[in-house]
Amino acid sequence: MRMYDIIKRKRDGGELSDEEISFFIDGYVSGEIPDYQASALCMAVFYRGMSLRETTALTMAMVRSGDVVDLSRIPGIKVDKHSTGGVGDKTSLVVVPLVASLGVRVAKMSGRGLGHTGGTLDKLESIPGLSVSMDRTRFERIVSEVGCAIIGQTGDLVPADKRLYALRDVTATVDSIPLIASSIMSKKIAAGTDRILLDVTCGSGALMKTLDDALDLAQEMVSIGECVGRTSVALVTNMDRPLGYCIGNALEVAEAVSTLRGEGPKDLTDVCVELAATMVFLAGLGEMDVCRSLVRDQVAGGLGLAKLKEMVAAQGGEASLLDDACDSLVAPRPSREVTADRDGYLFAMDTERCGLASVALGAGRAKKDDAIDHSAGIVLVAKPGAAVRAGDVVATLHAASDSLLDEGERLFRSALDIRHERPKDTPLIYARVSGSGVERRAARRSPKGREADPSPDGPVPRP
Amino acid sequence: MRMYDIIKRKRDGGELSDEEISFFIDGYVSGEIPDYQASALCMAVFYRGMSLRETTALTMAMVRSGDVVDLSRIPGIKVDKHSTGGVGDKTSLVVVPLVASLGVRVAKMSGRGLGHTGGTLDKLESIPGLSVSMDRTRFERIVSEVGCAIIGQTGDLVPADKRLYALRDVTATVDSIPLIASSIMSKKIAAGTDRILLDVTCGSGALMKTLDDALDLAQEMVSIGECVGRTSVALVTNMDRPLGYCIGNALEVAEAVSTLRGEGPKDLTDVCVELAATMVFLAGLGEMDVCRSLVRDQVAGGLGLAKLKEMVAAQGGEASLLDDACDSLVAPRPSREVTADRDGYLFAMDTERCGLASVALGAGRAKKDDAIDHSAGIVLVAKPGAAVRAGDVVATLHAASDSLLDEGERLFRSALDIRHERPKDTPLIYARVSGSGVERRAARRSPKGREADPSPDGPVPRP
Repeated sequence: MRMYDIIKRKRDGGELSDEEISFFIDGYVSGEIPDYQASALCMAVFYRGMSLRETTALTMAMVRSGDVVDLSRIPGIKVDKHSTGGVGDKTSLVVVPLVASLGVRVAKMSGRGLGHTGGTLDKLESIPGLSVSMDRTRFERIVSEVGCAIIGQTGDLVPADKRLYALRDVTATVDSIPLIASSIMSKKIAAGTDRILLDVTCGSGALMKTLDDALDLAQEMVSIGECVGRTSVALVTNMDRPLGYCIGNALEVAEAVSTLRGEGPKDLTDVCVELAATMVFLAGLGEMDVCRSLVRDQVAGGLGLAKLKEMVAAQGGEASLLDDACDSLVAPRPSREVTADRDGYLFAMDTERCGLASVALGAGRAKKDDAIDHSAGIVLVAKPGAAVRAGDVVATLHAASDSLLDEGERLFRSALDIRHERPKDTPLIYARVSGSGVERRAARRSPKGREADPSPDGPVPRP
Repeated sequence: MRMYDIIKRKRDGGELSDEEISFFIDGYVSGEIPDYQASALCMAVFYRGMSLRETTALTMAMVRSGDVVDLSRIPGIKVDKHSTGGVGDKTSLVVVPLVASLGVRVAKMSGRGLGHTGGTLDKLESIPGLSVSMDRTRFERIVSEVGCAIIGQTGDLVPADKRLYALRDVTATVDSIPLIASSIMSKKIAAGTDRILLDVTCGSGALMKTLDDALDLAQEMVSIGECVGRTSVALVTNMDRPLGYCIGNALEVAEAVSTLRGEGPKDLTDVCVELAATMVFLAGLGEMDVCRSLVRDQVAGGLGLAKLKEMVAAQGGEASLLDDACDSLVAPRPSREVTADRDGYLFAMDTERCGLASVALGAGRAKKDDAIDHSAGIVLVAKPGAAVRAGDVVATLHAASDSLLDEGERLFRSALDIRHERPKDTPLIYARVSGSGVERRAARRSPKGREADPSPDGPVPRP
């Protein structure tokens, strides 16, 4: 078998055999196949795509390239959640404890912020004392006893993906549905979970900019899950605006806590209920309507928040800081109000730019080893659809210095699009994709028109 | 400027600026741009193509990457010739001296055999004493005094192409018209010639398998020539059958000599006359009809052969060996006759396989540093279109050992396709492409139907 022939077959639109795909991944990880052949193949895949059989074979070849977590000692069905990334996306902090409070175990390995998107580990680390790195024994014990834990990756999971992703990142071959799908699914499968909930974000703040692409990715991942016996459901969610009102690590923890308390913004709450209900559904606790009720009851009873505090404590964090308005979680920082420069509607908010503004304020990393300011970030006042007058505050920025505030403000302002016309309503959740098909959702308008004019539905935490 | 953005722009169908193309070539040659980004870009170019402006910019960026030959000290218009490679293609040995005998100077740098195709340098080296490697002063002197010389590349011409071609060769990105065109044209332009004749071969023995591809390549190269002020004409020639009857180095020199003596096979003679006449036309000696007459007269007068002997002598070779039937040029070798296994027409001859059979017999190299047996090769008796009976000799193979003959016979037999039906006539020259357009040619049938039933038109040299 020769890598040349594999590249040429894919280049010419052929289908690769399982053996050819394994030959590629094994050879690439061992160093026998050089980067320049791997990048040529990735570019050919970018244009030619892959059949589901090929994508599944690629996924499993990558899984086999490293360690595979064995969660069999933890009783019950383990359900994992993955988001393709967003801005202000703190759903894991809400959903994981909610689900665990219903007895569904979640052994979650999360990532750090990447580019303009935040990372759950960075958010959790804004809680003093909390550790996201631990050995597998302690991880398993916490999941067994508490019901959930969120840590960084342990062991050498999917080294093939690490190498291939780094290569794709510098050769403009990231944007390929089969390559993205196999990358995500290989990591979830190697993490040992039984069922998988996929949150495929879609819009200006997401990797998938269009609904078609997001649906393709969702279907591809769900299909891979079906093929390898890991039942998966994907929700395609709206990332054309930040989720909730807070962007930045400690700010987002505070917003997650208020959401678990039943006082969160409507969009964040609705998405979290749907995500959590789907995980509970995947665990077999009932039909979706039943699961939604179960989840809402847990919120109302404060059981999700109790579970989060339990998890935080088990991971060494100061759980008491999650009481009240989390005042002591967010350190005071110089702040700046950004105001509307004209009358009109906040027509759109380039969400990637909002994320980049937050990174510029210190909440994320420009380079891999940069330090993070956990208290930096953005608190929105208006979101797309809101009517604004010139001089109205649209957001408050928080950062350690004026120069950081300058750069953050410049980027944040460039994200704003204020017009005379009001934007069209878009659904918060575009679609649900499962093994039985795609269920699309239309924009809903509440009697009060709340989704179209989303003034805060709950108190916004202010540092 | 970032290579990532250049790859992405091309990937998405955009047009690269001259600066971006220079940035890529300069960075690739200096080592700042790694192979894995270059191969990703080449694959994107494979799918997206390049505009003429881009291809011209790529050509000139590659020219600038190394030495450029200055032929200005040699008087008159210098015309060069390039063939995209074939089997039994000894036209340079015929055409270069013919053209030089008419006063048109040819300073030709040739290559060695590559894959299934032969190389002019290997053929010339079957003449004892002849040197294809010399300094530029001697090269210029021979061209000035004799009128022509054929040597290997001197100096560091187009290092960008050397590196890029080696990369394309292992990443399945060779088959791209703009990349092939810029590779060829950069080398011809760096070689310092004024006008360029391009022989674009087409068919089972050629890089371009289809007429459409060959026409595209021809037009692309001619257009680049126009853009950079090097007037070029391309002939698209038939390589669905070996050219002439001899394949193998010394065998081909002998066939070239008999062609210069006016006793060569009709196909080889006709192609050589057309190629030589076009070079003479490019040098400005008259309209094509006039040039054809001039060339035919030189053959009839033996002036081309005299010029070849003059050139061989100037390059240190034993020119007297080119007298008579070149008997002493081809050393005796064990031989084997290959016969038809059934009655019918020789319907087709996979020309790439014929070339590979010749390589297997020892006439070419399997690996770069393999030695060549200059006397090994194939002498055809029948060519496509010929009627054969079971047991008729189709060809005689020559090689140093029985085991080489075994492997050569196996490959050669696999090239033969004998059927009851007679193949359709195909033109020897499909088209002529110049700055003023494409002139296609239909298959011609001589009154005697000679082209369709090509029994040898001249004596075939036999070792």
